[in-house]
Amino acid sequence: MGGNREMKLQILGCHAATPRYLAYPSAQVLQAGKHMLLIDCGEGTQMQLRRFGVRFSRIEHIFISHLHGDHFFGLPGLISTYRLLGREKPLYIYGPKGIKEAITMLLKLGNSWTSYPLHFHELSGSVSEVVFEEGGLRVQTLPLDHRIYTNGFLFSLDEGLYKMRIEEVRKHGIDKAYYRKIKQGKDVPDSQGNLVPNELLTLPPPDPKTYAYCSDTAFMPALIPLIKGVDTLYHEATFQEKDADLAASTKHSTAKEAARMALEAGAGQLILGHFSTRYKDTSGFQEEALAVFPKVEVAHDGRIFEW
Amino acid sequence: MGGNREMKLQILGCHAATPRYLAYPSAQVLQAGKHMLLIDCGEGTQMQLRRFGVRFSRIEHIFISHLHGDHFFGLPGLISTYRLLGREKPLYIYGPKGIKEAITMLLKLGNSWTSYPLHFHELSGSVSEVVFEEGGLRVQTLPLDHRIYTNGFLFSLDEGLYKMRIEEVRKHGIDKAYYRKIKQGKDVPDSQGNLVPNELLTLPPPDPKTYAYCSDTAFMPALIPLIKGVDTLYHEATFQEKDADLAASTKHSTAKEAARMALEAGAGQLILGHFSTRYKDTSGFQEEALAVFPKVEVAHDGRIFEW
Repeated sequence: MGGNREMKLQILGCHAATPRYLAYPSAQVLQAGKHMLLIDCGEGTQMQLRRFGVRFSRIEHIFISHLHGDHFFGLPGLISTYRLLGREKPLYIYGPKGIKEAITMLLKLGNSWTSYPLHFHELSGSVSEVVFEEGGLRVQTLPLDHRIYTNGFLFSLDEGLYKMRIEEVRKHGIDKAYYRKIKQGKDVPDSQGNLVPNELLTLPPPDPKTYAYCSDTAFMPALIPLIKGVDTLYHEATFQEKDADLAASTKHSTAKEAARMALEAGAGQLILGHFSTRYKDTSGFQEEALAVFPKVEVAHDGRIFEW
Repeated sequence: MGGNREMKLQILGCHAATPRYLAYPSAQVLQAGKHMLLIDCGEGTQMQLRRFGVRFSRIEHIFISHLHGDHFFGLPGLISTYRLLGREKPLYIYGPKGIKEAITMLLKLGNSWTSYPLHFHELSGSVSEVVFEEGGLRVQTLPLDHRIYTNGFLFSLDEGLYKMRIEEVRKHGIDKAYYRKIKQGKDVPDSQGNLVPNELLTLPPPDPKTYAYCSDTAFMPALIPLIKGVDTLYHEATFQEKDADLAASTKHSTAKEAARMALEAGAGQLILGHFSTRYKDTSGFQEEALAVFPKVEVAHDGRIFEW
């Protein structure tokens, strides 16, 4: 595993709707190779970034699932703070149509437009689309089923570089200047100037690392083909089965439903989050999901997952 | 001092601009007689209300000084939370012109209009005006000098009831049914039916309890006549004198300037707040102000003041 192909996820907040002290609404930082991304930005996200010592000036791309307050009311404050800290490099925000107008209005009211370029990529499509692709990282939307227009996001990290079989390369007496081309899958000349087919010199690239963020949504089997074989699935579990009627009426999922999604998608692991604060602790969520799917983790503010 | 004439102030946040974990932006709760009021509402205010166990469903009036994020980015979240908690009683919001459109847009984006009546009283005047008067509490604006349109607020609690001199009342053989009228300053009949002048039966009402909230503002001597003799003055002190140039360029005050305001207004006590997070601790603020004015307190998140 190359150091540049690691995914590291830190939960900043994983609670639903009405936040409490030390129970923050949705936000998480994903380190994917060289990219640091923010996913959702509930109220208080900037305080959580500082609390957990995240070097958040490195964030250049923010992905917002939907425009319920517990997923984006922290965004105007974070954008303002970047200005106060003298940020110069651009910030890119991906989120539902309307987000640009809202943020623009809030900043104008405070007569505090940014010191740095702020770019919005507004989403309104109903099928999955690629919204970001750079340096081996691809981000695509995952249309979800919630009360308002909502997207999850699938992050795929793939350097696309072939693994060089160094003993074969040496056997053909290939100059080091060609090593980069070999990793890119190109045929290269040997010491005699004869082209050597790439498949003799390499092994195929490793599978991409993947992460799917699915919040907020009702149980949605249509999602399964899009997240098939994902390494890590974060799926909302606002309720437990005893409150399945509430999950249905508010278009949220139960822990059991989240586990069924993980099972049917063949996920490597399932992280449960977006817990309703009606539950005293999260042990019930894990228990319920483990009855369906074997690898279940429970988010808590600050927790780090790496794969 | 009647129990209904107490003022109790709890600081929820008193830090400037870029909030940190456990260093929240401006917000405070004022209990004035039977009224519970919220003054400013920076990001994270709803978490702070829960952290300090404030029964915040009782808040019916919110006063916003200006539309910089560190004074109102917590407002949309609090309004949403009230809906999720099933609030039915009205909420009144006083703040600069533009606040209604901003909040309305954010709630509409989330398709989450309130379950309760939400009334906006937008401010745009440049002279002090009374914006609320009910049950002995009067609130008037204090035009401040900041980078954008900003008001402080002066809260005056005055039941307006005269103190009854019970021995005089009894001497005239006045029926208990008239006691309320006596306190209201009316002349009432004695046991013979002859009107007794109120001044024989009462002492004048006690002075009103007062609180002035002045944040954010440059040093502003024009404010002094408006807050003359105030019991408690909360005045911003974003900077210390060594950074007086920064205070001037950003239209903020130093601790020394805040103390000069308290001295010239003849305030009962001065509370310093709105500290820049550039300072390691707040002791320097207090020291600087104490050199000018004798009764200086320093705000910190959660601190309670009563008078």
